[in-house]
Amino acid sequence: MPGSKLHRRGLMLVLSSPSGAGKSTIARALLEREDELFMSISMTTRPPRPGEKEGRDYFFITEDEYTQKVENGELLEHARVFSNYYGTPRTLVEQHLMAGEDVLIDIDWQGTQQLRDSARYDVISIFILPPSYDELEQRLMMRGQDSEEVIRKRMAKASDEMSHWPEYDYVIVNDVIEESIENLQSILKAERLRRTRRLGLDEFVNSIRSRN
Amino acid sequence: MPGSKLHRRGLMLVLSSPSGAGKSTIARALLEREDELFMSISMTTRPPRPGEKEGRDYFFITEDEYTQKVENGELLEHARVFSNYYGTPRTLVEQHLMAGEDVLIDIDWQGTQQLRDSARYDVISIFILPPSYDELEQRLMMRGQDSEEVIRKRMAKASDEMSHWPEYDYVIVNDVIEESIENLQSILKAERLRRTRRLGLDEFVNSIRSRN
Repeated sequence: MPGSKLHRRGLMLVLSSPSGAGKSTIARALLEREDELFMSISMTTRPPRPGEKEGRDYFFITEDEYTQKVENGELLEHARVFSNYYGTPRTLVEQHLMAGEDVLIDIDWQGTQQLRDSARYDVISIFILPPSYDELEQRLMMRGQDSEEVIRKRMAKASDEMSHWPEYDYVIVNDVIEESIENLQSILKAERLRRTRRLGLDEFVNSIRSRN
Repeated sequence: MPGSKLHRRGLMLVLSSPSGAGKSTIARALLEREDELFMSISMTTRPPRPGEKEGRDYFFITEDEYTQKVENGELLEHARVFSNYYGTPRTLVEQHLMAGEDVLIDIDWQGTQQLRDSARYDVISIFILPPSYDELEQRLMMRGQDSEEVIRKRMAKASDEMSHWPEYDYVIVNDVIEESIENLQSILKAERLRRTRRLGLDEFVNSIRSRN
């Protein structure tokens, strides 16, 4: 078997986007289709929204717990968004990476910057854009029966997040969702084939170069 | 249409492999499946083999013509392999790149090094490996009724070429051909989505950030 001695380094696939761009749907589909890819669940100090489940959507923690975790270095990255705190638990992510598996991390530009700046991790960052202003507005309105002011606020926040697209490795414009999923799959597949992430190739090639 | 103002820089997809690894089959399939990807046809001073067609497999030229073209800077890269000379015509490749299209270039490690070192082009390099020694030997034998010595020579040449895999961006082990084709497609798709190759994204994002 040609692959028997071949394995690879795990990587971090970081997804960011303004809310309303369709990131969650794309991420869910990718996780269903891809083996060796695991979701990092964030911690947050904000209260759960209706339907959100502990350990699936977030780990819900208090501000004291959050502060403690930051001090103990238990978070890979952490950021304040409005009056709430968010962070990525370190242990689970590192376990997957050490096993040669990849981790999908859904964080905003602040967290992405921290991961990239740490230079300790192998980060592939992808920014997902909505296809148009109207489409974005529509998607943000569909989230509930919100006032015009709330929607305007969301658009402003989305606009702010979007200004950070030049900091990412890849950009996907999410027009047709199936295409976006396939694009993301291609990025993951390609990055897994990068020479620098592959382990055991030296031995493998030597075994082809001489019959022993 | 979200893509209307979006286009991208063309890239050079360079494929190398020892002969017998299945590169030509993979390249042909890729060209059939991918729009906006064109094959670069090399020039060579070696005589055509049975079945080879001028302008499809190679442009067959004399040594004098070759020397002239090198002197005129008409070749993107050129190399001597045994007693024959090979080169990539510059004009066609550059025309495709300027049109935002990609060019598939099938050259050996010497040509790849020249393209990479020139730093003038956007080169993505991929090395294709056979799945095993036995498989490689079998593929090299299937090429005709050759003597054992000829086969041993080919294996030695393949072994030499294979020692250059660490100089490439990606490595594909060609075990199941359909998987190899899909891997190559993913690399192309992903590289096309790289932020640094995309043009017009700035305007596009501005059009989403404000309604105008």
